[in-house]
Amino acid sequence: MWNEEIECMSREDIFEFQLKKLQKTVKRAFDKIPFYTEKYTNANIFPEDIETLKDIEKLPFLTKDDLRACYPFGMFAVDKKEIIEVHSSSGTTGKPVVSGYTQKDIDSWGEIIARGLTMMGLDADDIIQNTHGYGLFTGGFGVHYGAHKLGATIVPISTGQTRRQVEIMKDFGTTCLIFTPSYGIYLGEVAKEEGVDFDKLRLKAIGFGAEMWTGEMRDRIEKTFNTKAYNIYGLTELMGPGVGIECSAQNGLHIAEDFFYPEVIDPETGITLPEDHKGELVLTNLEREGMPVIRFRTKDLTKLHYDTCDCGRTFVRMERITGRSDDMIKVKGVAVFPSQIEKALLKVSDIEPHYQIIVTRPDIMDEIEIKVEASESLFSDDIKEMMGVKEKIAGYIQNEIGITVKVSLVAPKSIPRNTKGKIQRVIDKRNLN
Amino acid sequence: MWNEEIECMSREDIFEFQLKKLQKTVKRAFDKIPFYTEKYTNANIFPEDIETLKDIEKLPFLTKDDLRACYPFGMFAVDKKEIIEVHSSSGTTGKPVVSGYTQKDIDSWGEIIARGLTMMGLDADDIIQNTHGYGLFTGGFGVHYGAHKLGATIVPISTGQTRRQVEIMKDFGTTCLIFTPSYGIYLGEVAKEEGVDFDKLRLKAIGFGAEMWTGEMRDRIEKTFNTKAYNIYGLTELMGPGVGIECSAQNGLHIAEDFFYPEVIDPETGITLPEDHKGELVLTNLEREGMPVIRFRTKDLTKLHYDTCDCGRTFVRMERITGRSDDMIKVKGVAVFPSQIEKALLKVSDIEPHYQIIVTRPDIMDEIEIKVEASESLFSDDIKEMMGVKEKIAGYIQNEIGITVKVSLVAPKSIPRNTKGKIQRVIDKRNLN
Repeated sequence: MWNEEIECMSREDIFEFQLKKLQKTVKRAFDKIPFYTEKYTNANIFPEDIETLKDIEKLPFLTKDDLRACYPFGMFAVDKKEIIEVHSSSGTTGKPVVSGYTQKDIDSWGEIIARGLTMMGLDADDIIQNTHGYGLFTGGFGVHYGAHKLGATIVPISTGQTRRQVEIMKDFGTTCLIFTPSYGIYLGEVAKEEGVDFDKLRLKAIGFGAEMWTGEMRDRIEKTFNTKAYNIYGLTELMGPGVGIECSAQNGLHIAEDFFYPEVIDPETGITLPEDHKGELVLTNLEREGMPVIRFRTKDLTKLHYDTCDCGRTFVRMERITGRSDDMIKVKGVAVFPSQIEKALLKVSDIEPHYQIIVTRPDIMDEIEIKVEASESLFSDDIKEMMGVKEKIAGYIQNEIGITVKVSLVAPKSIPRNTKGKIQRVIDKRNLN
Repeated sequence: MWNEEIECMSREDIFEFQLKKLQKTVKRAFDKIPFYTEKYTNANIFPEDIETLKDIEKLPFLTKDDLRACYPFGMFAVDKKEIIEVHSSSGTTGKPVVSGYTQKDIDSWGEIIARGLTMMGLDADDIIQNTHGYGLFTGGFGVHYGAHKLGATIVPISTGQTRRQVEIMKDFGTTCLIFTPSYGIYLGEVAKEEGVDFDKLRLKAIGFGAEMWTGEMRDRIEKTFNTKAYNIYGLTELMGPGVGIECSAQNGLHIAEDFFYPEVIDPETGITLPEDHKGELVLTNLEREGMPVIRFRTKDLTKLHYDTCDCGRTFVRMERITGRSDDMIKVKGVAVFPSQIEKALLKVSDIEPHYQIIVTRPDIMDEIEIKVEASESLFSDDIKEMMGVKEKIAGYIQNEIGITVKVSLVAPKSIPRNTKGKIQRVIDKRNLN
């Protein structure tokens, strides 16, 4: 345990100090950042209205567009002189989002990650090979600062040079790898090609994040590297990686609740959902000096669990991210997420993990068609076989989303691959706007 | 001044505390690192033999090959647990060289660079856009730690995304750019293409390094960005960037003499040269915990000046690096450096800065031929004109190196360009081995 007093305090105490921190944060933001002054005044909500934690729901949400509108430094709550580091999102869509840190914020970041690395079973003896890139993106720096705080050895190799990564893993006796799941799987393949004996490596833990993942991917990573792999979640707007990190129980990510206040909302209505309900994660900085972010809509879908974890920590656990609220489509009045379709498809063998969701409205009723690639062997099979698979898929999907869909099995490799950026899973032909 | 007491102390005091630090360093290295124990014992030199600074000359040199032979962690003077960060050279030739740092070493690095940034006129108000890459290479991290120490704002953008760099320069109000001269020149070109009004930028200083450069390159950089540019020198083996940094006088780089002890030696005989003599820089760590490096042959050619600088600092100044001792060729018993040829060629107009040095031994005497590209206009001129230019070049070169050379003027673009890595200037056809 890095800080037992904090990480295992009673839920009552956590909520109590969160309220105090929240009140302080809202007051500071309102006083120091014109954006909040205006936004809260327009909504007729003022710092003194926050009397309970529940009152946070009275505050308007903050979106990525709000942050963009404040580009570059409009969200800073301190004099520019106090800011010692600036990060930024990639800005592929519109202006980038800027994130600013004071010395205390950088120290907090290190503290939070040091706690997480401890949850993963690491200490000052460990050698952490960090394959995340360092740059405006926050990826590399979080673990870097956390490793320093922990007193472990950081090897800041960043992404790429995969053969060299493999060599260093062996030669340095790396005990922890940090990677994105996709790069980790590639690194594992290259290591195998190079004839690495994974049993001879000194790996104790893997930290992975920055991408969506499935249980199957984790299994594959753990099997390949012959060690446990822990998810690290975070986002530049709030700090960077480390907002949530998995412990040895691997049963959800502990959110550092002394630094962040999490809510889960219905992405459509904005209403806060109770524990164990899936919705969009909304996060609030509780300790940030440089740029306090309040009720930021992450668009990431998850559930929160407040019961005490097997590891003894009382900090809330979030489930791994299973989708994005901006991928949501409404069909026949029902909210459908590509992740639900994906989940159903994973249950069926004889198909490839490539699919498209096509929504049409031929008359007044919505129709939804799922195009799925058949495997090579299925595609050369007889028609009866294929009909059986189609029915199976339709059944699983209906079970998952509650409405009937049409399923088409298409030839292997016929669905266009997107080699860069986001994959377009949904094709909405309804012209709803 | 970042630390006037240290940076302006009398030469006597500097030498006195350097001696104490050197004695401590040699003793620690001898006691803790088997490599030194063996090497010094074999050379019959022991820590107690270091009674004056001059006695350092009794210690054998340390070469890159020595460091390679200790790969990966054989040069560490502390338990691996004390090492919190590891860097490494690229290892394109043989095993890489590893450099290890304790927390104190990382703090020292920040201290040294904070001093250098102060020499460049920066303080906590400044915004430093760091285009050096972050990774195993030490490039990006030195300025990163120094900026943190100074309390300035670091924008860790790293190399690439040049259009974005230009945008950030404008939008963030960057006051200091850090780059390699070649990337800086490219960045300037792109900024011009993008229509940047350099007078409207808030640039106060540029820090450049990690490559050899000429006065002409600095002039071009300063003219383009309309601000002063200061050289930063360093190497991973000793720490990283920051071993020497230029002050406002731009008259040599101040070496942080409380952390490094510099010597200049004759690269052939290994004899230490007096002040103002050009030779190979040899460096010794005076404060390093993790990996004390003693009498490391940098292969970089420079001169040292011990007179007090116009800026008031007493720390020794090294001239910019003008060549590498491993580029040296001996012709007719005389040591010749490509940089000398280059210097002579710079005095002649009507030629291009592309040349080759070809050394032959037709009989028993060495001959040296310099192939130089003529400019387009000269090449279309009459033969008499060309003869005149050839004679002029031969005269300047003889003046520089003291021996007669044959000069050939060749067609523009006929000398092969090296688009990657080191340019091969010297073609030695003598088969001397």
